[in-house]
Amino acid sequence: MEAYQPTERTQVRRLPKRAVYDKQQVHSILDEGFFCHLGFVADDQPYVIPTGYGRVDDRIYLHGSAASRMLRALDRGIPVCFTVTLVDGLVLARSAFHHSMNYRSVVVLGQAHPVSDPREKFAALRAITNHIVPGRWEEVRQPDEREIKATSVLSLDLDEVSAKVRTGPPVDEERDYSLPVWGGVVPLRNAAAEPISDGRNPEGVKPLDTTRFVRFARQVL
Amino acid sequence: MEAYQPTERTQVRRLPKRAVYDKQQVHSILDEGFFCHLGFVADDQPYVIPTGYGRVDDRIYLHGSAASRMLRALDRGIPVCFTVTLVDGLVLARSAFHHSMNYRSVVVLGQAHPVSDPREKFAALRAITNHIVPGRWEEVRQPDEREIKATSVLSLDLDEVSAKVRTGPPVDEERDYSLPVWGGVVPLRNAAAEPISDGRNPEGVKPLDTTRFVRFARQVL
Repeated sequence: MEAYQPTERTQVRRLPKRAVYDKQQVHSILDEGFFCHLGFVADDQPYVIPTGYGRVDDRIYLHGSAASRMLRALDRGIPVCFTVTLVDGLVLARSAFHHSMNYRSVVVLGQAHPVSDPREKFAALRAITNHIVPGRWEEVRQPDEREIKATSVLSLDLDEVSAKVRTGPPVDEERDYSLPVWGGVVPLRNAAAEPISDGRNPEGVKPLDTTRFVRFARQVL
Repeated sequence: MEAYQPTERTQVRRLPKRAVYDKQQVHSILDEGFFCHLGFVADDQPYVIPTGYGRVDDRIYLHGSAASRMLRALDRGIPVCFTVTLVDGLVLARSAFHHSMNYRSVVVLGQAHPVSDPREKFAALRAITNHIVPGRWEEVRQPDEREIKATSVLSLDLDEVSAKVRTGPPVDEERDYSLPVWGGVVPLRNAAAEPISDGRNPEGVKPLDTTRFVRFARQVL
């Protein structure tokens, strides 16, 4: 797999050594994340809304309801910014100035388009559902015609894409290493606790196979 | 504490029963989150960038470097959308259609202003640092004049604010409860693993007191 071509808008200017355009790495960040922040503009005001998403090759699908305010007004594409952020750790330096976070983030600029073709919409909803719980689509009741109509879906092509990645320990001023302050990294991760039944599971129904939540660490509450 | 007044722009229209304007609840979401997504507009294109922040009463401070692209062009306020999202669980229904997430999110609309007064800037950086690790500011080397100058900080007043909260089990179609599909919630939380020293801590330096990370669950990797 090759790399995304940086444009004037996705060329990382601040801390360019953190920039990543490699497709494989971008896809792995998108596949590990499980919700995004979608930005769009209405009357010169930006809005940023969290929502779920799925990826099929070089295309992102997301629930359009998040942007329903915009979709009502426009049936052509709208400029969006799709951002996925994974925070991997707190970077604790000896000086306040050098504190940071370890993170991997992807920013996609482009035009989001409403998906109207029922077959593409079906495939998009499958991708969104299975993105969060692999294989879930195949075990649940799939949407009927009414439900598909009631769900708005947007597509966004992975074309103008950049990622930023910070890893590793703090970088302190040399003179600060002698200070009596602990320096290092606190690793962070999304963690999943034991699933909680809603009390409506018929006897004999198989409990959820939690090994499918590969992206989540096991959590002790 | 009272409530934020919904405006035309922050009135939650989609699923209004999830809307929260109560100040105390908004503040508790902002205090539990530890990074935000900041949206701003340049040449009609929205940008959404993750960054750290802190809160002092009804004002948010954030590293302005995230919006440096904008700050270079404008020294007056710029319209931003500041969004903090906590995902509390995956909501697994018996139908694909009713899948959801439990979450708490805050959206703040307004004008972000560069903080230039050195005293306010100092207080803002303290708030940002201590937001992530309570008391960290008091134990590290605080920024000198050069470092303060090199850091750009934005302020954003909590004025036009809304929150959305979903909690509880899936809500399935009555006929779907008899399906042989497990329904319920997978609780999610940010978790912290054991801190990793950068290998430059002098002998005798106190290890990090991890009880300060109240917002993170203990994690088993």
